[in-house]
Amino acid sequence: MAKVAHDPSSLIDGGETIRVRPVPDSSLHVNGGDDAYSYTRNSYYQRLAANVVKEKINGAITMKLDVEKHSCRSNTICVADLGCAVGPNTFDAMQDILEFIKQKYKLQCPKSKMLEFLVLFNDQPSNDFNALFTSFPQERPYFAAGVPGSFHRRLFPESSIHFVHCSYALHWLSKLPQELLDKNSLAWNKGRVHYTNAPDEVVKAYASQFAKDMLDFLDARAKELVIGGMMIMIMPGMPDGMTYCQLAASLMYDFMASCFMDMANEGLISEDQVDSFNLPIYTPSPEEMTALVARNGHFSIESLELTNPASLVDGAVDINAWVIHVRAAMEGMLTKHFTGDSIDEMFERLTQKLLKFSEQVESGYKERTQLLVVLIRK
Amino acid sequence: MAKVAHDPSSLIDGGETIRVRPVPDSSLHVNGGDDAYSYTRNSYYQRLAANVVKEKINGAITMKLDVEKHSCRSNTICVADLGCAVGPNTFDAMQDILEFIKQKYKLQCPKSKMLEFLVLFNDQPSNDFNALFTSFPQERPYFAAGVPGSFHRRLFPESSIHFVHCSYALHWLSKLPQELLDKNSLAWNKGRVHYTNAPDEVVKAYASQFAKDMLDFLDARAKELVIGGMMIMIMPGMPDGMTYCQLAASLMYDFMASCFMDMANEGLISEDQVDSFNLPIYTPSPEEMTALVARNGHFSIESLELTNPASLVDGAVDINAWVIHVRAAMEGMLTKHFTGDSIDEMFERLTQKLLKFSEQVESGYKERTQLLVVLIRK
Repeated sequence: MAKVAHDPSSLIDGGETIRVRPVPDSSLHVNGGDDAYSYTRNSYYQRLAANVVKEKINGAITMKLDVEKHSCRSNTICVADLGCAVGPNTFDAMQDILEFIKQKYKLQCPKSKMLEFLVLFNDQPSNDFNALFTSFPQERPYFAAGVPGSFHRRLFPESSIHFVHCSYALHWLSKLPQELLDKNSLAWNKGRVHYTNAPDEVVKAYASQFAKDMLDFLDARAKELVIGGMMIMIMPGMPDGMTYCQLAASLMYDFMASCFMDMANEGLISEDQVDSFNLPIYTPSPEEMTALVARNGHFSIESLELTNPASLVDGAVDINAWVIHVRAAMEGMLTKHFTGDSIDEMFERLTQKLLKFSEQVESGYKERTQLLVVLIRK
Repeated sequence: MAKVAHDPSSLIDGGETIRVRPVPDSSLHVNGGDDAYSYTRNSYYQRLAANVVKEKINGAITMKLDVEKHSCRSNTICVADLGCAVGPNTFDAMQDILEFIKQKYKLQCPKSKMLEFLVLFNDQPSNDFNALFTSFPQERPYFAAGVPGSFHRRLFPESSIHFVHCSYALHWLSKLPQELLDKNSLAWNKGRVHYTNAPDEVVKAYASQFAKDMLDFLDARAKELVIGGMMIMIMPGMPDGMTYCQLAASLMYDFMASCFMDMANEGLISEDQVDSFNLPIYTPSPEEMTALVARNGHFSIESLELTNPASLVDGAVDINAWVIHVRAAMEGMLTKHFTGDSIDEMFERLTQKLLKFSEQVESGYKERTQLLVVLIRK
């Protein structure tokens, strides 16, 4: 079978990282529970995408993580998954990483008593932790805790973490740039829901918020990770030489905007509702990420590369499944702006539009649109 | 105003510690959410009772907790609250304890950089952690994590905890002794919901399960606490020389049973439903607890005493408030056996009965029915 010509995981995902303070905004999270539109049932594309880099993570741990050193103060290795959502992806990812760390430890200390592991599952306080906790694997070889809070701030004590994993979460902005809503600003994002095909000022506003968020994130993690600790970040990435509108993800955002605008023209929603809604998602380039890590100064880059998130997905893209995945990840933020009926209608139209333009969806595909970053705390 | 002649907290409480494996039983937890019957709104009696021992805890920390030693490996002190339920009591208790530890640290190391704290909130996986996490104090001087799981098993890595607090949780049994339901056993608990006024065999079955649970608990904590770490346990206690039926709590259980039996006689529920329902609650004596700690062997007893949990409660007991407190703590387990209507009816009858026998409720009161245990890991 042909490989799929589009990777849904580059735009739909689980980690929900909107920083809302002081009171968490309950609308900003992936769908909880276990029903037809739940993230639990509709996040397997993300897992396939993450699996692409599994062996690269294994390699990084084997080559660069000094497990023996990290286990000498106590017999426990602490691993954190940031933006864990509600599973099951987070459990699979943690199991893999623990297995890699154990293998490395056996290599380093073949005769020592096996380590204990503490896995810290982090997401926003509005995440459905009840669903996460009641779906923990029955036999899990680690102690587990849930840590509610924004990962753009400190979550853990100083030098208490040995390994950080953050998959498909960091491209969510902590908040939307205010100028997108300012009619007097050049960055007013009228008639769009994203920066695709938008004026440079809109793109810059998004990029600037992403940079601020990323620096906050790196600052917090620099304090929490032990020296020599490892951090893995997986997120959508923008290949050099591509334009935003060539990304399949961006095509979807454009279609979403046009569905909403059609609905506004038909009087089903107001135009103002569309103008005031923007997706808080940004896709950085490797160069941007490299510059931000350098600006932080506390990490060495072991690897920073674009990978092909669709390489494990066989067959043509299943538009219906893809749209349900998008819905599982985004419905929370849509309900803040639109009624349930409008959201149903938009997703129905979006599905039809994507089916109609499926060739364009396929041709919007590029192989290397997933960014993998491996850092070591200096 | 006269001091209240009955302390509700000795029988209604928050920590929910039923061990359910492998799949957590969602019926066994205090009421979540924030509505009229929620534990959040109906747990202030428990807090008043715990406040009685606040200064004793302060004294124990000042005299016996070597904060300087515990902070030398890292700058972080880890505190766990076991059976935390959904707040707000757990937040108040943790804030007090952290304040006492800080004061001790300032005494020991007046010129050192202040410590960081990690507070681990534990309860059953079926506890409403979403409610807990979204009600965290906005300004809290500690990092926080939720740890779902039974505290009768290991929850944390080896030697990773400096201080354990467990208030009004340990008297909940992990399970009911099976013989209570066995018609051929001398411990068959027909027509009762508790061991009050029951044959010795019933009492022994309860006591034996409590002993097993307590030993499991102490074993797990012995592994998790660092040497010199402190553990505080607060729970209902059985004064020497009293009989079970003299405890006000027991009077309530007897009334509950008689309400159910009246309802069975009227055909509203079946007698079998009453026979098969038993409250998994046990009130140990100081002697029993002393023997169990000795049998475990890993802790020294710094203090083990009965205190008066009602000493901060002014006025006569408010029967209505008391019954709502009981309901907030127990409704989860009642709904497993009875319909919502039957539960409403039983609590209505219970309130009326307690109001009718309020003198007996008052006279059932004894001053020192709260057990405070302070242990140090040897």
